Amino acid sequence: MKRIGVAIIGFGTVGTATVRILSSNAKLIESRAGVSIYAPVVCRRSTPRNLSPENRFVSDWREAIRDPEAQIIVETVGGIDVARSVIEAALNAGKPVVTANKALLSVYGDELAALAHKNNVPLRFEAAVAGGIPVIRALAEGAVGDDLLSVYGILNGTSNFILSRMESAGAEFSSALREAQEAGYAEQDPSRDIDGQDTQDKLAILARLAFGTPVEPRCIRTAGIRNIRAVDMHYAKRLDSTIRLVGSATRDHDGIDVSVGPWLVGRDSMLGKVEGAHNAVFLHGRNLGKQVFYGEGAGGAPTGAAVVSDIVQIARELSRGTLRFSAISGFGNTEDKFIAAAPGPSSWYLRLTVKDRPGILARVADIIAAEHMNIDSVIQEPHMDKADLSFVITVEPVGETNISRAVTAINKLEFMKEHVLLMKID
Amino acid sequence: MKRIGVAIIGFGTVGTATVRILSSNAKLIESRAGVSIYAPVVCRRSTPRNLSPENRFVSDWREAIRDPEAQIIVETVGGIDVARSVIEAALNAGKPVVTANKALLSVYGDELAALAHKNNVPLRFEAAVAGGIPVIRALAEGAVGDDLLSVYGILNGTSNFILSRMESAGAEFSSALREAQEAGYAEQDPSRDIDGQDTQDKLAILARLAFGTPVEPRCIRTAGIRNIRAVDMHYAKRLDSTIRLVGSATRDHDGIDVSVGPWLVGRDSMLGKVEGAHNAVFLHGRNLGKQVFYGEGAGGAPTGAAVVSDIVQIARELSRGTLRFSAISGFGNTEDKFIAAAPGPSSWYLRLTVKDRPGILARVADIIAAEHMNIDSVIQEPHMDKADLSFVITVEPVGETNISRAVTAINKLEFMKEHVLLMKID
Repeated sequence: MKRIGVAIIGFGTVGTATVRILSSNAKLIESRAGVSIYAPVVCRRSTPRNLSPENRFVSDWREAIRDPEAQIIVETVGGIDVARSVIEAALNAGKPVVTANKALLSVYGDELAALAHKNNVPLRFEAAVAGGIPVIRALAEGAVGDDLLSVYGILNGTSNFILSRMESAGAEFSSALREAQEAGYAEQDPSRDIDGQDTQDKLAILARLAFGTPVEPRCIRTAGIRNIRAVDMHYAKRLDSTIRLVGSATRDHDGIDVSVGPWLVGRDSMLGKVEGAHNAVFLHGRNLGKQVFYGEGAGGAPTGAAVVSDIVQIARELSRGTLRFSAISGFGNTEDKFIAAAPGPSSWYLRLTVKDRPGILARVADIIAAEHMNIDSVIQEPHMDKADLSFVITVEPVGETNISRAVTAINKLEFMKEHVLLMKID
Repeated sequence: MKRIGVAIIGFGTVGTATVRILSSNAKLIESRAGVSIYAPVVCRRSTPRNLSPENRFVSDWREAIRDPEAQIIVETVGGIDVARSVIEAALNAGKPVVTANKALLSVYGDELAALAHKNNVPLRFEAAVAGGIPVIRALAEGAVGDDLLSVYGILNGTSNFILSRMESAGAEFSSALREAQEAGYAEQDPSRDIDGQDTQDKLAILARLAFGTPVEPRCIRTAGIRNIRAVDMHYAKRLDSTIRLVGSATRDHDGIDVSVGPWLVGRDSMLGKVEGAHNAVFLHGRNLGKQVFYGEGAGGAPTGAAVVSDIVQIARELSRGTLRFSAISGFGNTEDKFIAAAPGPSSWYLRLTVKDRPGILARVADIIAAEHMNIDSVIQEPHMDKADLSFVITVEPVGETNISRAVTAINKLEFMKEHVLLMKID
């Protein structure tokens, strides 16, 4: 049986799990793939622990790429600069690459795919979105024959853990965040997760695969969950709903509408049922209909297993002499340009926190009426703190231009204690 | 750009949808796959309607396979005998095959895979299980590096449609079945769907892929949904539950336990939330954790789109000269033998329909106690028809041997009007 060596560059959570799975499941993989896979080289700045004698340690990634036993290069360094250099060097050396790096791919995906194409080797990234859930395969291969209408979902486990805790324990955002940090679900600086950039990156990759056009993460309208309060979860429950951070890409004839933000979703809906650090990706194709892919979206074991799935695919191609660049990923095609479409109309949730005084609702209602919007409901709990009064208005479906103008006007009212919290109602 | 011709053999619902999708999405597929795909030959016994001039009609499948333009053979004939001859002839002619035929694959999958191997061409079957949901890819590729503990789910859309109607409308089985037939979800002879054979076939394929051992459909313990009554759905609701037909394969160190039957599942559980003709496949891997794949499990459009996904994969390999037999499917490996494991303990629902008289519960309780089982609850509606009295007993977790012995003994009691309806409680 042929043996294929893998260099693991970056030995954090995902790299460690990848080495562990390759070793503990070696026989299983051999019997399924018809090829034996091992990790002769592992690269990390400081000396790693728990390596079997099979794994040789190097501290210079260039050495790992050069190693003649390293036929596949796995980049699990993370971040942008070093990771980019690693992948470029590997591709230029004619070696196939597996990466889990969504931040890098969302910005430099086309460039790296072009380089892979030039060197005629594959660049695979199943683990970059939704951890162990095979959603890259589902989009790039399963849905390859269908025209897709939308792809959306819960793509950030940290935010979903926090929102789930706020939902189940009535906790404030800050204490739910602390809990997530203690449980290892949130980093010391959680901003990329809670402010939506991580979801942006993943959505950019999914939209790229679904619609074939480049989507720059920084062009995605984004709101995070930092300003969501216990009182919002309370009002959400009054509306038979809960709150989830959703990344969404929808196509119409004009273009593609992409956004990231907190949505008010039905408590019994499939989005509302996604709890804890789980992810769920929803795909809507003209022929395939609506599909949902659900599972663990982060963590070493599922993400490592997704990395291994890519390694196995490449190893099989290597062993059969059929290794080629694979354009099916949708990256590398830069002919189609991204055209932002106007978002369709939607219902909205507005939470206002005000200094209590007479006539507040009349002033707000005037602004809403001026934008030709209909109020669906007004909810205010009687037992609320009068000094820091929060109430909620929901409005019937209206476009984002109108609601944005109304929110800007409301924010200027002198009794507003903070900006309106705005959420789309699913 | 290279052009790849496909012969569609069998022009029913799936074959028709496949031709339609290939034609209407031709440009989209071309841009994604880098290869142009068309269907020069369509084979059907009688003359089909609605074919474009591009599609040539033949009535002899041998002619379709021989056609020099037919580089990929799609078998959508269904059934066993003809379909098997078609696939064998295509493989022997060195042509790659795409099929949606679960009944054939579940029995002859290994044999056909061996033939594909011998001729070094791929045999793909994404559409054979769960329609448009890419669960074959998820298992064979996404989970290739992980050891799987279980795979189970709702695999038959017809049964799920019937159970959903019984749940929402309080309908009896026979009227829900009639409704399914009128809506086109059930065939005139629905027995393969409602008695569980269709689920058996699909489960055999999934278990094959998940555990690498052959599983014969006829070795799967199977119960259908024919004997489920409106009163069962009524009692299920009393237990905050509903009823779903589940195919389940679970591995332990002893072997694999496979079964098909109606389960009592929580109304709010993910299984309970699967409604209408939808399918959902649950996968549990040691590293991947629990994953769920949900979508439309039947119908021309989603199934055709899955067939097209296989065609595209093969067309790309053909155009790049990398076409080979692919062993990753798990079929063709006949070294490992199937070993049936004893099912783990489970809670059970027993519905008894009896001639009303004193002392019934005492007699039944004696039998249950003799098998060392604990009764969890006894439910009997007061307003029930006394002449045809139904009541329900649920018992705490116990192995299948004990519950089977108890049911056999209960069935012999002289006051039983029909056999016990037994359901596993999830």
